[in-house]
Amino acid sequence: MSNDAEGSGSPCVLRSDDDGVATLTLNRPERFNPLSEEMMAALAAHLRAIAADESVRVVVLAAQGKAFCAGHDLKQMRAQPSQQYYKRLFDQCSKLMLAIQKLPQPVIARVQGIATAAGCQLVSMCDLAVAAQDARFAVSGINVGLFCSTPAVGLSRNVPRKQALEMLLTGDFIDAEVARERGLVNRVVPADRLDAEVGKLCDSIRAKPAVAVAMGKAVFYQQLEMGMAAAYQLAGQTMACNMMDEAALEGVQAFIEKRPPAWPQTGKQ
Amino acid sequence: MSNDAEGSGSPCVLRSDDDGVATLTLNRPERFNPLSEEMMAALAAHLRAIAADESVRVVVLAAQGKAFCAGHDLKQMRAQPSQQYYKRLFDQCSKLMLAIQKLPQPVIARVQGIATAAGCQLVSMCDLAVAAQDARFAVSGINVGLFCSTPAVGLSRNVPRKQALEMLLTGDFIDAEVARERGLVNRVVPADRLDAEVGKLCDSIRAKPAVAVAMGKAVFYQQLEMGMAAAYQLAGQTMACNMMDEAALEGVQAFIEKRPPAWPQTGKQ
Amino acid sequence: MSNDAEGSGSPCVLRSDDDGVATLTLNRPERFNPLSEEMMAALAAHLRAIAADESVRVVVLAAQGKAFCAGHDLKQMRAQPSQQYYKRLFDQCSKLMLAIQKLPQPVIARVQGIATAAGCQLVSMCDLAVAAQDARFAVSGINVGLFCSTPAVGLSRNVPRKQALEMLLTGDFIDAEVARERGLVNRVVPADRLDAEVGKLCDSIRAKPAVAVAMGKAVFYQQLEMGMAAAYQLAGQTMACNMMDEAALEGVQAFIEKRPPAWPQTGKQ
Repeated sequence: MSNDAEGSGSPCVLRSDDDGVATLTLNRPERFNPLSEEMMAALAAHLRAIAADESVRVVVLAAQGKAFCAGHDLKQMRAQPSQQYYKRLFDQCSKLMLAIQKLPQPVIARVQGIATAAGCQLVSMCDLAVAAQDARFAVSGINVGLFCSTPAVGLSRNVPRKQALEMLLTGDFIDAEVARERGLVNRVVPADRLDAEVGKLCDSIRAKPAVAVAMGKAVFYQQLEMGMAAAYQLAGQTMACNMMDEAALEGVQAFIEKRPPAWPQTGKQ
Repeated sequence: MSNDAEGSGSPCVLRSDDDGVATLTLNRPERFNPLSEEMMAALAAHLRAIAADESVRVVVLAAQGKAFCAGHDLKQMRAQPSQQYYKRLFDQCSKLMLAIQKLPQPVIARVQGIATAAGCQLVSMCDLAVAAQDARFAVSGINVGLFCSTPAVGLSRNVPRKQALEMLLTGDFIDAEVARERGLVNRVVPADRLDAEVGKLCDSIRAKPAVAVAMGKAVFYQQLEMGMAAAYQLAGQTMACNMMDEAALEGVQAFIEKRPPAWPQTGKQ
Repeated sequence: MSNDAEGSGSPCVLRSDDDGVATLTLNRPERFNPLSEEMMAALAAHLRAIAADESVRVVVLAAQGKAFCAGHDLKQMRAQPSQQYYKRLFDQCSKLMLAIQKLPQPVIARVQGIATAAGCQLVSMCDLAVAAQDARFAVSGINVGLFCSTPAVGLSRNVPRKQALEMLLTGDFIDAEVARERGLVNRVVPADRLDAEVGKLCDSIRAKPAVAVAMGKAVFYQQLEMGMAAAYQLAGQTMACNMMDEAALEGVQAFIEKRPPAWPQTGKQ
């Protein structure tokens, strides 16, 4: 836990909040923001805090510097060649990735430069992703003899399987536009419009009631793992529940009366 | 069950049959064909009748007016704010959606104007879909505080997950061409060629033996929910069964003899 | 087992090896390389031998003549109209298809001309596929009254479901470029560049350590059939295991030292 020397003066992950949007910024730009133990622990801690923070409506996952994230910290990994250590490390990483999906708030990846290996996995596990035109994506572990098995879990649920397997077997990069066509990112914009585009998605999501967003995000991933009949049963129960929420009752009433809804509690609830 | 006043003079759903093609037309154009209890009950009844009607080879699901279907009847829903009522309502809706997939005959959505919320879900649950160039699709429940959880079941099985989630979280529309690229519809044509394009698909399917089409459609959806090995076991058994059908034996014989097949029973069976 | 008369002078499947690449070539060009019992038995035998042959790093599945593969041998099938025979036949075929995925080495389909029915299935079950611009794909069994249920298993795991179902219900061809857009093939090139493009993929994969490729391919297909949490558990264990392999330890060390890796054993391991 101590070989994070290069950036020891500053935190691994920065958090800044602005009107319901919490931005988490990977902050080891000189090393391309590797997912060291410290970085993963810091990200996980921030996500835990955000999960319990009702003032946060959307999370943006961003990164300092020229790269988004270059994957695991290979130097740290190589220094501890024990299977037990590696099992613990990948377990920590998988828990972090699953925490993104389990978070009540939507998480938007804001991607510039390269996103490789577990960095590409981070993008795949976010709910939405916006990339700069110069962003490039690879699951390149195979180049050092380490097949990106855990990144494959997220990638293969974003991208058609032959295209995912080509990336995993060759380690080759795809550019942002190809990533968009294949389903890995939602939108691609010039680098100088990246914040504006992410901001548009944040604004749209912030204008919706929090309860519906949280219920919906949770059921979306749950039903994807079910057969059709079970998926409908779960989704139907969820909608019945959602409809009884005071925000939905007000929203539907406002729709009928052709007026803007007055969401309960805060204006942005 | 009584607030269907606006269209009480005419049935919710029209059925017309033409040479093996049954067209079901949503018939509340002035209200954008909402899936009221009455509309869903009428649709379900028509599907039950068609399932048992061997003269029907293909079903076209169409709609009167400027819109295909704007989803649930929010006025009717808002009038009965009880969780039990909503559970029953979404249960009725889910059963209807599953009935489309369980129908022995293929169902083709013929889409013009908007298809929103449960209207977009209807399109996603049809076996095939043809859209007019002006058609637009959204799962917009989140705009009134009601996340489209049940529409998400169909949508997320048509469209890559980040793109589905963007639609669900923002409520934004996508146009017909984007819907085609993402897998929600098969073909997009100018509005004045919509019937011709749907007709081509109907003609193609009508020229195939009914037994093979029904077997194939059923196994297609079943095997999608299975692992690869189980899927192959089921599909292999189905093909062995299908091959013993007299239409297949005749079809293969005709192929060998380089002549058109003479399907058993009717010329179109 | 004896009506393979037309090509009885030569083997159904040719194998040639070149520096770690085993090319299996379907060799009944005059009949469009049908998957007769003999052809399937020969392919399965070659795959069994290759699975145990550490000198093979990649397999190319190619075909002689104008067509890649036109599916089952309908003449042979029609001659034995018994359900038991058909069950055995489709069982043999499904086992062959699954053997491609279970093979430790990646399999690349090299496709020219038509790939129809079980021929299209072969392409869908290969890990990667490169097609000539003139290649065309169909699951056309429905034209003779035999819905392509087993090809649907592979196809529907490559291609969005409405597009797969359209092919299965109409029997229509799609061209190579559409196949690429939909995920059925990775790359499309002019016919005279087919070998060069396949060669590039082979070269890329040969440069990676065999253990990582085999582990990765296996876990890729396994985790696709699991829920997210179970998938991550399996993938995490696999990566921990993979990381302890001497090739990965060397590869990561070489990366840290900014030098090319010296893979253990052979230069190509």
